[in-house]
Amino acid sequence: MEKIYLDNAATTRPDQKAVEAALSYLEENFYNPSALYKEGFSVRKDLEKARKEIVSCISDSGKYDMIFTSCGSESDNQAIFSAARRGNFVTTEGEHAAVFSAAAELARRGTEVRYAKLNPDGGVNEGDLLSKVDKDTSLVSVIHVNNETGAVNDIAGLAEKVKKIAPRALFHSDGVQAFGKIPFRLSGAVDLYSVSAHKIGGVRGVGGLFRNKSKNLFPYIFGGGQENGLRSGTENTFAIMQFSAAAKKKFSSLDGDLARIRGYNRLFRSLLDEKIFQVMSSEEASPYILSISARGLRGEVLQHMADDAGVLVGTGSACSSRNRYSRVILACGADEKTADGVLRISFSAQTTEEACRCAAAVINRCAAELWERTK
Amino acid sequence: MEKIYLDNAATTRPDQKAVEAALSYLEENFYNPSALYKEGFSVRKDLEKARKEIVSCISDSGKYDMIFTSCGSESDNQAIFSAARRGNFVTTEGEHAAVFSAAAELARRGTEVRYAKLNPDGGVNEGDLLSKVDKDTSLVSVIHVNNETGAVNDIAGLAEKVKKIAPRALFHSDGVQAFGKIPFRLSGAVDLYSVSAHKIGGVRGVGGLFRNKSKNLFPYIFGGGQENGLRSGTENTFAIMQFSAAAKKKFSSLDGDLARIRGYNRLFRSLLDEKIFQVMSSEEASPYILSISARGLRGEVLQHMADDAGVLVGTGSACSSRNRYSRVILACGADEKTADGVLRISFSAQTTEEACRCAAAVINRCAAELWERTK
Repeated sequence: MEKIYLDNAATTRPDQKAVEAALSYLEENFYNPSALYKEGFSVRKDLEKARKEIVSCISDSGKYDMIFTSCGSESDNQAIFSAARRGNFVTTEGEHAAVFSAAAELARRGTEVRYAKLNPDGGVNEGDLLSKVDKDTSLVSVIHVNNETGAVNDIAGLAEKVKKIAPRALFHSDGVQAFGKIPFRLSGAVDLYSVSAHKIGGVRGVGGLFRNKSKNLFPYIFGGGQENGLRSGTENTFAIMQFSAAAKKKFSSLDGDLARIRGYNRLFRSLLDEKIFQVMSSEEASPYILSISARGLRGEVLQHMADDAGVLVGTGSACSSRNRYSRVILACGADEKTADGVLRISFSAQTTEEACRCAAAVINRCAAELWERTK
Repeated sequence: MEKIYLDNAATTRPDQKAVEAALSYLEENFYNPSALYKEGFSVRKDLEKARKEIVSCISDSGKYDMIFTSCGSESDNQAIFSAARRGNFVTTEGEHAAVFSAAAELARRGTEVRYAKLNPDGGVNEGDLLSKVDKDTSLVSVIHVNNETGAVNDIAGLAEKVKKIAPRALFHSDGVQAFGKIPFRLSGAVDLYSVSAHKIGGVRGVGGLFRNKSKNLFPYIFGGGQENGLRSGTENTFAIMQFSAAAKKKFSSLDGDLARIRGYNRLFRSLLDEKIFQVMSSEEASPYILSISARGLRGEVLQHMADDAGVLVGTGSACSSRNRYSRVILACGADEKTADGVLRISFSAQTTEEACRCAAAVINRCAAELWERTK
């Protein structure tokens, strides 16, 4: 039986056409792009073209450049350890672990870290965030689309407001769940922006860190001076070229995909057994992510039952799956029983209406069974 | 015309059988290995098997584990920033840029960095190294096989001697040009050891950092807690599985390859026009790397001429190709004219005798032409 995969916020199936388009970089075009012979130059040219194409997906002003990193987590780490150099660092309780754990490390090293509270939908509480920024703030980091609830933060607006209070602060955003999914272009106030290939049909092994060119960025991985000295290590040309092809495709159908996924998200909500499930995501969330909770049941058990029935969904974020309760869901104000029952349904451009109908039915059935069993 | 590729120290052509063996991780096995459904567990199991197989390539005592990183440079950076915490850091003038630039960054932050001198062949001067170690040394890092001259450092012996002087110091080695090429097993005194996939037929996007399990290693990229908390970011399963297949193959033919490449290396030396070329690499160097110099000519020009004739070779390290003179070659005691004329010929298991004969003839002809032109 074909599996129904609705854990696309964890990773997506790589776009096969984009893989095929890039395979030559594992074959006849395998050369090191730093090599000084024609074959190296040629690969370098392709790589720079890919970079321009990816930059142009969310920036048209010539104001931004982008370095390739190995993943979204590295992008977040580089942004934070580069920019949070003195004063305090303001972030939110709704960040991905890559920002949250980097913040914890900063705190361990003596930087003051301030966490803004969340609204019930997982978006940052704007008033609380701004109240925590002051003239000593060196960096503010706010996730663009929350990876557990899909809440969309107005990062352009927040960045403007932050800079009125702290003109010299840098503003970073983790855009991993936004890039290629919701319409957005980088405006001047966002200084650093992290993206990842494998959430939009790219392969793993490559991410990006956008930078407002007028702002300093420091290297995090030192060495041969690749990426204009900002990220050393032989360039992963296969992954970069595949990322570029996948991004081009995703952005070319972004609006159509968004409308369709919005429809599926609504359909999914309407199909859920409302005696069991409550919807955690707000109506305004990115439709790619739908967080629901079967309060009183264990999400993990439900996940396994759905798995047995061929439906793959997440429980909160894949990488924090070691903890019973999601820190983000608790920060939304949910109690532990609600947090324990959370499932994260996440869609991709490949998702079909049929898959949504089938998955909702399976999840309802599993929840009803589990409900019976545990009563 | 088929190109003759002799720049394998910069990168190797990925092993196509290993690519094919791993492609399913970009297709039906694309799942996130941290996901808690069967499909995720299954990928996780494969990944852990790959890890064991790679560890067993150079360690049989159960004393070492290994984390996957994104590349050799990241492995070096993590090792150094993790271990060089206090006191002084002793390294050599013959390190790859990933260690050398990380050392420069440490110095910028206030750590005392001491550089041991090189012997004329590019190996570290043991006496000088040991004289720089004292009880305040927190870390010593010595490259295993020099990436420009092929000089092999006896890192096991050096590590033992270092620890007699500084029992609490950690010993790290960049093994990128040694792993899969020269026979070596990790002994107890080497604490951290960096490797990279793409130098032995692996794809880019994955490296490894071996660790003596009894020693602490700190994370460098913080986040979701993958790799036992030591390297966050969704695991690059395709690259990891391909690395494992390529490593298994390379290690299974290591001795035979080594003997054959040693023969080619000798042949190459014997074919070179000795009126023009001097050999920089010693007889004891790894045969995979042959550094030669046409003193008085520019290596870069020679490289371009050879390129036009279908022979691809390097000039020093690919990633330091921005600088006219190789810092490592100068540190060997060569003058600038000699350093300017350097070419690096580097072999792989795919190199043939025919290719060596042809390449040597082309390089001789190019050098003779250039000699005529510049007189």
